[in-house]
Amino acid sequence: MTDYRRLRVALLGAGAVGSQVASLLLKHGDELADRAGASLELAGIAVRDLDAPRDVELPRELFTTDAESLITGADIVIELMGGIEPARSHILLGLGSGADVVTANKALLATHGPEVFEAADRVGASVYYEAAAAGAIPIIRPLRDSLAGDRVVRIMGIVNGTTNYILDRMDSEGADFADVLADAQRLGYAEADPTADVEGYDAAQKAAILASLAFHTAVPLDAVHREGITSITAAMIEEAAAAGFVIKLLAVCERLSGDDSESISVRVYPALVPRSHPLASVHGANNAVFVEAEAAGSLMFYGAGAGGVQTASAVLGDVVSAARRHIAGGVGVGESTRANLPIVSIGHVTTRYQITLEVADEPGVLATIAGILSDGGVSVATLVQTVAQTEEGATAHLIIGTHRAPDSALSAAVDRLADSGVVERVVSVLRVEGE
Amino acid sequence: MTDYRRLRVALLGAGAVGSQVASLLLKHGDELADRAGASLELAGIAVRDLDAPRDVELPRELFTTDAESLITGADIVIELMGGIEPARSHILLGLGSGADVVTANKALLATHGPEVFEAADRVGASVYYEAAAAGAIPIIRPLRDSLAGDRVVRIMGIVNGTTNYILDRMDSEGADFADVLADAQRLGYAEADPTADVEGYDAAQKAAILASLAFHTAVPLDAVHREGITSITAAMIEEAAAAGFVIKLLAVCERLSGDDSESISVRVYPALVPRSHPLASVHGANNAVFVEAEAAGSLMFYGAGAGGVQTASAVLGDVVSAARRHIAGGVGVGESTRANLPIVSIGHVTTRYQITLEVADEPGVLATIAGILSDGGVSVATLVQTVAQTEEGATAHLIIGTHRAPDSALSAAVDRLADSGVVERVVSVLRVEGE
Repeated sequence: MTDYRRLRVALLGAGAVGSQVASLLLKHGDELADRAGASLELAGIAVRDLDAPRDVELPRELFTTDAESLITGADIVIELMGGIEPARSHILLGLGSGADVVTANKALLATHGPEVFEAADRVGASVYYEAAAAGAIPIIRPLRDSLAGDRVVRIMGIVNGTTNYILDRMDSEGADFADVLADAQRLGYAEADPTADVEGYDAAQKAAILASLAFHTAVPLDAVHREGITSITAAMIEEAAAAGFVIKLLAVCERLSGDDSESISVRVYPALVPRSHPLASVHGANNAVFVEAEAAGSLMFYGAGAGGVQTASAVLGDVVSAARRHIAGGVGVGESTRANLPIVSIGHVTTRYQITLEVADEPGVLATIAGILSDGGVSVATLVQTVAQTEEGATAHLIIGTHRAPDSALSAAVDRLADSGVVERVVSVLRVEGE
Repeated sequence: MTDYRRLRVALLGAGAVGSQVASLLLKHGDELADRAGASLELAGIAVRDLDAPRDVELPRELFTTDAESLITGADIVIELMGGIEPARSHILLGLGSGADVVTANKALLATHGPEVFEAADRVGASVYYEAAAAGAIPIIRPLRDSLAGDRVVRIMGIVNGTTNYILDRMDSEGADFADVLADAQRLGYAEADPTADVEGYDAAQKAAILASLAFHTAVPLDAVHREGITSITAAMIEEAAAAGFVIKLLAVCERLSGDDSESISVRVYPALVPRSHPLASVHGANNAVFVEAEAAGSLMFYGAGAGGVQTASAVLGDVVSAARRHIAGGVGVGESTRANLPIVSIGHVTTRYQITLEVADEPGVLATIAGILSDGGVSVATLVQTVAQTEEGATAHLIIGTHRAPDSALSAAVDRLADSGVVERVVSVLRVEGE
């Protein structure tokens, strides 16, 4: 065996991902050393509770509650604790004491990314976070490196496995949101408190990370427009299917070109995606990121978005990169945020809307609705009316597909429709993406 | 504007890719400088003929026929000439004089990769070649870096756009190979001499590159088993479709695990792929690489496999990486080939076969055929017989699906079937992949 330089690796956290990382580091140590050109010595695993149960059996003597001592002696710090504190302090301590950092902490990067990257720049260290955006799918290096010579125009990502699992089952079974969610919780696809997933917070964090990379602009989390999937019903999915669409929770990062200026939009919402689009075929808890670039054209990256061992693969890839850099010397390559493009609010985004209304089946209703849309600067592309006879009389369903218009105009028009007196109920309003 | 360090870039070749690279370097210079942290100055473009027509208009004064002078003054050399010589000498000259090298030259890497990588290692430089394996699709960095902590089990790639275009049109139109090829040549999807594409040479070069990276083993081109698509007929595609398959030219790189040893197989051939497999949906001239890894599970990378401007995107990403490394200092990270796994010949590969035979419709034929297969160690999984009445009498078609068996056993059994006297014609023999 080659006599490699030894690098001390500190692991923070031994949850689903952390315990798999530790296990693989121990199991494949020789192989990883050959690839990294350095021997990766797992110096210890910092945890809060030494006696907590673990997914994988690990040598008891590796565990410690003294994270600080572990970090200050390390060449590479792997942060898999999640949350903001003490993860942030630990990462800054590691960078300050000369370590490169690997993290899967999307919440931290989406809120404190610039602070972390600046701390790394100051000491010439690197921060690796392939596992933070789409689990095991390699998307960070492609955006940061492979596409660094191109201009990304748009990213549409299915970046949350839980919501894709729920929407996919609703689509294939005609089931209701609440039923599928309960089942997903039972099967371990959704957490007991599903808010972070179903309200789009997790996807918004990933969107901020992807957009920052793609557009070379620090995108703060609060600049990401966010809507969840809790209001999606079986009826909406059925109606979408009838019109040739599937509903997906998308993270959309878009470059908007004006006459001689550019801006970007970053948004997360459930959208209608044509069934022929590659993203429509992403089933179950899988993730996929669809990237459109000026020169490269359309690219798609597909795979498992979560799971302890899958995410561990991405973390270990980063560990090998960190080790190679440590051995190679030189300073780490910082994040490129020099484009610093302005981020527009959702109102300035241009999309198509599909609006479903319940209206009274009376003469003049259609004219009133068409007038409101037209006055609001919204042009109608398609209109389908169905009439159902109920005990209370006839109720008409109107499905209106608009042409592209600014979101502010579309949402104002929908508000005016709701208040018009001729609309009994706004059944659903969905944006169309990927046409 | 930030005052960046200037890096001199030498471009060798101004063909379809080279002229786009030059054009994008000149057009997006400021933006690339911000991302690279260095100003990328196109010092010159070495060509054979100063007056040859170009795809893109470029400043006349950049062109030179003196490649050597251009190279020796450069920080980054972009080699887009193709072929072995003088590309090889130019790359070695560049590395020797302190430049990092970017190349899209799959033929050179597949035949002289180790020589080039060793030359880079000696001086601590790096060789980047994202454009050499699947055009604009980022696959090199994912394999080299993102999956460096995982163990790749199998790669199945559609890595040649021309053959995918031909097979896809044959599949959708029921057309014959020769007709589609002629049309593809007319439309510019196939070259006047289509040998490199349709005989699988191009795919074999890419397979050697992908397998070397995935298995950390130098895979020489002559270790790649190669079959082309010229013998694929409309009838074979129709029969495949009836059985739920599509025929794709696949580059398969596989890790074979024995009791306590491992080896790899690298092969290119037309194979039957189930219609439900993600690779079956790769249409037209697109490429896709499906990767199975122990921890990450199944990943797929999809996009345009060729085209001047698409490939230029991958080249420029490499140029930015090379510039960042040049600025960061330190030595380049060499290729990791320390696993050095043995490469087995096609005979040791285990797959399923689908064999179509024309046999006389006589008693005892089936027993003879079953006996030959059984004696050869080949077990039958499915058997479909159809009988057609012709003027010469009854002819039966037998479609035999085998269980998995070593290729040597399968091909020997097919030879004995052909010589058995009861088989009038071996219509087709195809391997099944992706089940």
